[in-house]
Amino acid sequence: MTVTQPDLDVFHTLESRVRSYSRGWPTVFSRSRGSRLTDEDGRHYLDFFAGAGSLNYGHNNPVLKRALMDYLEHDGITHGLDMATTAKRVFLDSFDRLILRPRDLRYKVMFTGPTGTNAVEAALKLARKATGRTSVVSFTNAFHGMSLGSLSVTGNAFKRAGAGVPLVHGTPMPYDGYLDGRVPDFLWFERVLEDRGSGFDRPAAVIVECVQGEGGVNVARAEWLRGLADLCRRHEMLLIVDDIQMGCGRTGGFFSFEEAGVVPDIVTLSKSISGYGLPMSLCLFRPELDLWEPGEHNGTFRGNNPAFVTATAALDLYWSDQQLEKQTAARGEQVEETLRLLCAEPGLDARHRGRGLVWGLEFADRERAAAVCARAFGHGLLLETSGPDDEVVKILPPLTITSDELAEGLLLLSRSVFATV
Amino acid sequence: MTVTQPDLDVFHTLESRVRSYSRGWPTVFSRSRGSRLTDEDGRHYLDFFAGAGSLNYGHNNPVLKRALMDYLEHDGITHGLDMATTAKRVFLDSFDRLILRPRDLRYKVMFTGPTGTNAVEAALKLARKATGRTSVVSFTNAFHGMSLGSLSVTGNAFKRAGAGVPLVHGTPMPYDGYLDGRVPDFLWFERVLEDRGSGFDRPAAVIVECVQGEGGVNVARAEWLRGLADLCRRHEMLLIVDDIQMGCGRTGGFFSFEEAGVVPDIVTLSKSISGYGLPMSLCLFRPELDLWEPGEHNGTFRGNNPAFVTATAALDLYWSDQQLEKQTAARGEQVEETLRLLCAEPGLDARHRGRGLVWGLEFADRERAAAVCARAFGHGLLLETSGPDDEVVKILPPLTITSDELAEGLLLLSRSVFATV
Amino acid sequence: MTVTQPDLDVFHTLESRVRSYSRGWPTVFSRSRGSRLTDEDGRHYLDFFAGAGSLNYGHNNPVLKRALMDYLEHDGITHGLDMATTAKRVFLDSFDRLILRPRDLRYKVMFTGPTGTNAVEAALKLARKATGRTSVVSFTNAFHGMSLGSLSVTGNAFKRAGAGVPLVHGTPMPYDGYLDGRVPDFLWFERVLEDRGSGFDRPAAVIVECVQGEGGVNVARAEWLRGLADLCRRHEMLLIVDDIQMGCGRTGGFFSFEEAGVVPDIVTLSKSISGYGLPMSLCLFRPELDLWEPGEHNGTFRGNNPAFVTATAALDLYWSDQQLEKQTAARGEQVEETLRLLCAEPGLDARHRGRGLVWGLEFADRERAAAVCARAFGHGLLLETSGPDDEVVKILPPLTITSDELAEGLLLLSRSVFATV
Amino acid sequence: MTVTQPDLDVFHTLESRVRSYSRGWPTVFSRSRGSRLTDEDGRHYLDFFAGAGSLNYGHNNPVLKRALMDYLEHDGITHGLDMATTAKRVFLDSFDRLILRPRDLRYKVMFTGPTGTNAVEAALKLARKATGRTSVVSFTNAFHGMSLGSLSVTGNAFKRAGAGVPLVHGTPMPYDGYLDGRVPDFLWFERVLEDRGSGFDRPAAVIVECVQGEGGVNVARAEWLRGLADLCRRHEMLLIVDDIQMGCGRTGGFFSFEEAGVVPDIVTLSKSISGYGLPMSLCLFRPELDLWEPGEHNGTFRGNNPAFVTATAALDLYWSDQQLEKQTAARGEQVEETLRLLCAEPGLDARHRGRGLVWGLEFADRERAAAVCARAFGHGLLLETSGPDDEVVKILPPLTITSDELAEGLLLLSRSVFATV
Repeated sequence: MTVTQPDLDVFHTLESRVRSYSRGWPTVFSRSRGSRLTDEDGRHYLDFFAGAGSLNYGHNNPVLKRALMDYLEHDGITHGLDMATTAKRVFLDSFDRLILRPRDLRYKVMFTGPTGTNAVEAALKLARKATGRTSVVSFTNAFHGMSLGSLSVTGNAFKRAGAGVPLVHGTPMPYDGYLDGRVPDFLWFERVLEDRGSGFDRPAAVIVECVQGEGGVNVARAEWLRGLADLCRRHEMLLIVDDIQMGCGRTGGFFSFEEAGVVPDIVTLSKSISGYGLPMSLCLFRPELDLWEPGEHNGTFRGNNPAFVTATAALDLYWSDQQLEKQTAARGEQVEETLRLLCAEPGLDARHRGRGLVWGLEFADRERAAAVCARAFGHGLLLETSGPDDEVVKILPPLTITSDELAEGLLLLSRSVFATV
Repeated sequence: MTVTQPDLDVFHTLESRVRSYSRGWPTVFSRSRGSRLTDEDGRHYLDFFAGAGSLNYGHNNPVLKRALMDYLEHDGITHGLDMATTAKRVFLDSFDRLILRPRDLRYKVMFTGPTGTNAVEAALKLARKATGRTSVVSFTNAFHGMSLGSLSVTGNAFKRAGAGVPLVHGTPMPYDGYLDGRVPDFLWFERVLEDRGSGFDRPAAVIVECVQGEGGVNVARAEWLRGLADLCRRHEMLLIVDDIQMGCGRTGGFFSFEEAGVVPDIVTLSKSISGYGLPMSLCLFRPELDLWEPGEHNGTFRGNNPAFVTATAALDLYWSDQQLEKQTAARGEQVEETLRLLCAEPGLDARHRGRGLVWGLEFADRERAAAVCARAFGHGLLLETSGPDDEVVKILPPLTITSDELAEGLLLLSRSVFATV
Repeated sequence: MTVTQPDLDVFHTLESRVRSYSRGWPTVFSRSRGSRLTDEDGRHYLDFFAGAGSLNYGHNNPVLKRALMDYLEHDGITHGLDMATTAKRVFLDSFDRLILRPRDLRYKVMFTGPTGTNAVEAALKLARKATGRTSVVSFTNAFHGMSLGSLSVTGNAFKRAGAGVPLVHGTPMPYDGYLDGRVPDFLWFERVLEDRGSGFDRPAAVIVECVQGEGGVNVARAEWLRGLADLCRRHEMLLIVDDIQMGCGRTGGFFSFEEAGVVPDIVTLSKSISGYGLPMSLCLFRPELDLWEPGEHNGTFRGNNPAFVTATAALDLYWSDQQLEKQTAARGEQVEETLRLLCAEPGLDARHRGRGLVWGLEFADRERAAAVCARAFGHGLLLETSGPDDEVVKILPPLTITSDELAEGLLLLSRSVFATV
Repeated sequence: MTVTQPDLDVFHTLESRVRSYSRGWPTVFSRSRGSRLTDEDGRHYLDFFAGAGSLNYGHNNPVLKRALMDYLEHDGITHGLDMATTAKRVFLDSFDRLILRPRDLRYKVMFTGPTGTNAVEAALKLARKATGRTSVVSFTNAFHGMSLGSLSVTGNAFKRAGAGVPLVHGTPMPYDGYLDGRVPDFLWFERVLEDRGSGFDRPAAVIVECVQGEGGVNVARAEWLRGLADLCRRHEMLLIVDDIQMGCGRTGGFFSFEEAGVVPDIVTLSKSISGYGLPMSLCLFRPELDLWEPGEHNGTFRGNNPAFVTATAALDLYWSDQQLEKQTAARGEQVEETLRLLCAEPGLDARHRGRGLVWGLEFADRERAAAVCARAFGHGLLLETSGPDDEVVKILPPLTITSDELAEGLLLLSRSVFATV
């Protein structure tokens, strides 16, 4: 990489080699608003990545910003551990009123450490405690986090190897479509559950993403999700939906599992739940599963009250009616139309898939996805790859992107794709 | 618990049983400033807990607040993954200039997920990767976090049981003073390292807190820490200092290990590093250990840029000179004086210990500590217990507390103690 | 169970509840010869179990007995650790000359502790040492032994639960026919190996039985075994054939894998290798895999020299020509003919399968298999069940059984089956 | 090693590198009787190793041999799984009458697979099942076997590394004398048990050898063993005494724990229990612990009936009166006298220790032990080393050795020692 800007020096000198996005996007960002970021040289970038799904309502959303500034200005509680605070109560009230009750979901809310992986760790602990079993089933190409418990149910071999210890207590099963439709759904999974000689220990839980983001934008069919929920019920395994990336409206409805009509036992939320990109995570579960002793799982920043404030503002703004959900569907169709045309292009050998406003463009030539992203950066478009071999270009704009901005970005995407042919 | 305020209803109804602080402090907090919080009824509380060490510079510190408000106002990057941003560069520059270079520390800086446990998970991964070994030594009554990797090096049996799987790859060794001075330092530890028949697998690393906060305010002597560093060097184990609670000036110097003159291979920082109670964590290590591949450990909120802004402001304000460090020492002496008098009281059967501005008051009658904290809450003082049986009252005020506030709080503490005799 | 004989008292009083065969066969056996045992009341039993495959050459085979008596009479070495002894050298010579060389197998021979499970433990250790990987793939309904390493690659849930710790480092894959032919061979296995996002860690080895005895007499097709060997080669996994029950001629040839024409990297042998029912086990492997350091695996009874003597006599007697192999095939056909007729019986709802002289009769009504065995015992025929639900009657006579004895036993079997209809 | 005898060729060519004793004793043994072995060249060797404790009654003991030959001659059951047999009943009767009842021990008897490690695996399983806990405490320099479960409670780093997976669920504690008397017995062990913050999970059991054979002939004091039994009782941990090498009279009484007056919850026996060097193992436990389900642990060769026959003969011959026990004490004194004189020798820098008829001679110059054994072999004396660095010459003759033979061997030992000075 040839980076000439002197301003990057300190990152090279002081920051660990582990940094990754700063390599693909070699500039220094300074400001952002809505669907755009601006770097120190004043160059603008359209954002088709949205903080890996953390910025569903755009950068520095003005309504949320106002609520946050007011809260800070008046010295609201900033750091609250798990103390009762006004900001937390207001959030809980809104979450119950706008999200849970309209969907007839009676979940208890647990404020975990403010990272997705912490919510997953809590979910796994609770499932093990509730069932007395140790093993958890995850799916091929799943991503659930980088701490030891979450990593053991994550698919990526490179990330798994980073653990430095053998990852145990997790078993992968084929995600929807993994075996190209050649095998009936859950044939293998159900067979090993039913057979006392299978060598497969009955799991405490199954953890699943309704759409796999990091795994390559793999979309589970509603009927597959219903089949999975049914399998869990019949075999007394808890169903955990990890909605960290796909929740908060990314697929249309607030939760990604709504469309399929399934009701998970446990749900993890993070990324866009604060709405403003502030660290916050939740673990939701059926009241009967609330078997925690006080303090049995905790974390210093589980009471990030500024995040509760923006979260409440986001719920009020976007989830009091169906407007956002409809707009997401419309924007998704706009993306799909472009991708369909691209994939029809002779010689490109690409496939597309997606749901709501998360889409993937997979190239048979696995090197091409990275090349497309590099081109796009040159054109002022932020795009990332996903999938086990980084072979899928992932399209994940803010849900609040305008139709014009989206069109502009899709054009840049198309230019970038064609430039690599 | 008899709670009459109707405002707590939603917490009881919607929030998980796992909440803990809200049980001991049954009110709804709404605002805070400096060393005080205020509840919805306008009642004030003096804070001797400081967000479990996350608020070393007080609540909503006005200088930090100003920097944060300015940043937000101008739409600085909020959520930045590990992109290069202006806020991050400024932080790195300040951290290098004010913290690392003056102490002759040449660490690489890794921005982990913004929780302490995530920084510990990263440290453990790196140690295993660098050595090719799996086992890690921790100490009795250690606390390093609640995700699976960190929990396996944490001492508390109640928290460990929450894992739901056997915790492996960690072995406890006696912390300084654990065997009441009846055994030479590291006698057992060194013997098993030297003996090829000990059944003790050579560890990748040793992880230690220079003062154990959650474990009961146990203070390691400087010579013990030097002995440990020497042992690590001689037996080629990496030394990890977990400075999440005791760093950022809590014991006087910025790092808790400075006084002993040891240089750890890896250091974890969190809690007060942002200065404002915002989620942020760092993992520091010798450049030779920077063996990460890009993205081998990551996390959605590792680029919490508002926290970088307040962190920078805190470094500039408090670590450009030695004033805070001196004041911490003075405040510590003020606490110690009170505790000395208390412990001299006939019939109380208490012991005290501490360093800098973290102190513990241990009662032989182990029930008494909780009773003291309950009384203190009634008097408008926030106090928490620690230790394996919650037998130690922990005194952890903001470092910025005034002498008068401290005196006021110590008086309330004394009243609370005497009321339980 | 109604047991009237007073002679069983001491077993009830002193022996652990863990005993099992003595429950189904409630008598005290005192003598045995060829295919028959005799109890203390002088009652004879035809043996269709053959020591679970340890008595392929019959009870107290007179030729082997003569060699053993001579050896003992002349004070040959009885207990030899891994010292070089005359008896061991003679065995090695014969094994090389009669077994390895004619089959063009160039294996190194390791004398493990004299149990099958010890040979498996050695095989797993060696595979892990050779590859530096920890995970091992086994198959549904596999049985490899009851010590911790072997148990983790064993399928039976009841036996697995006995471990008392989570069994890790093993992953089951579907055995041939497990999914009723609805899925192409190795579709799932190969897919997870090829996909870096599958969450399936590359295993050190695959361990397989060519016919699963304990698992219900499941017979792998030759082409499936060849496919497996090919998969192992392409993905650099070691292939371990556990020939403990199916080796030593049980399926016809000396090794059960000969027919398929595959050459495993590692082979375990036990049960009938001594020929006389004496404890003895071997682990065979390609010379390139002989990476052991002296004494890296050992065991007190690995030099059971009387077993080497009978093993040599058995090799000389039965493996100098093809007569036994041909006879096994003929006897197998005799069994198959009976089973075919039985399964054609209306209302029985049974299936049969087998190879060489190991056959299984599976009942749809899973209780029936035990009932058949109980009836058979009453008729003087020793029969056992196998399979995950004990739903398969297992037919495993000595290979040396005469055609008349076999006919007699098959008649008793038929009577027992019909009595349960 | 320069070995000129052509007769060793086949071992070099065909046998695995893992063999060890054949390296230190480079000859081919062919016959043995009492305390002597003879090689193919007719050379005699006095045996101070006794099959690593498996030949307490000497090689091919004529009384046992007669019983064995008679049994074989009359076609007694050879291989009996766990069927009730005459030979097993007679053994159980004798074991109860001669061993258990006179010592007021009410153990249930479990016939495990016929290796020591299998008995240990069964003991660990049972302890975990009975307590519902996973962890087991072992001691520094313990040796309990080479299968995965046993290896995890074994001390030797070289042997542990052979596992190829991290060994977990076991924690070492200091054996008696390990810290040179500088620390009160069980100070560390009891402290971590009592402290809920120690990070030490309450174990299911403690497994201990009263004298550590492989670990370097370390002798626990009776009061230490009583302290351990008391600790186990108070903290509800099961006490497992592994008497595989030290039982069957090696330390004087039949069990090595008799002298201390402790009653273990579980005892493992193997090595000399058959008396003739034939593979056989037992696991004994209090009747309340007999929680096994039928077949929950099993093994093909657990019914090695010829071994039951020689075991019974040995019990009748040596344990009907106190003669052997007294003779063992006398022989032990004879050994000790020689060792005392040797250790008093200026310039030798050696220490000795032992109990009954197991003794160790430890050299400060750790290379010397191997040199002594090599010299001894040249003089016709079989001696082995033990200890973590093979620094201890182990003296372990048959208990039936005559005083003259013992004197002869001690003279050869002395010659060998002096030759290395």
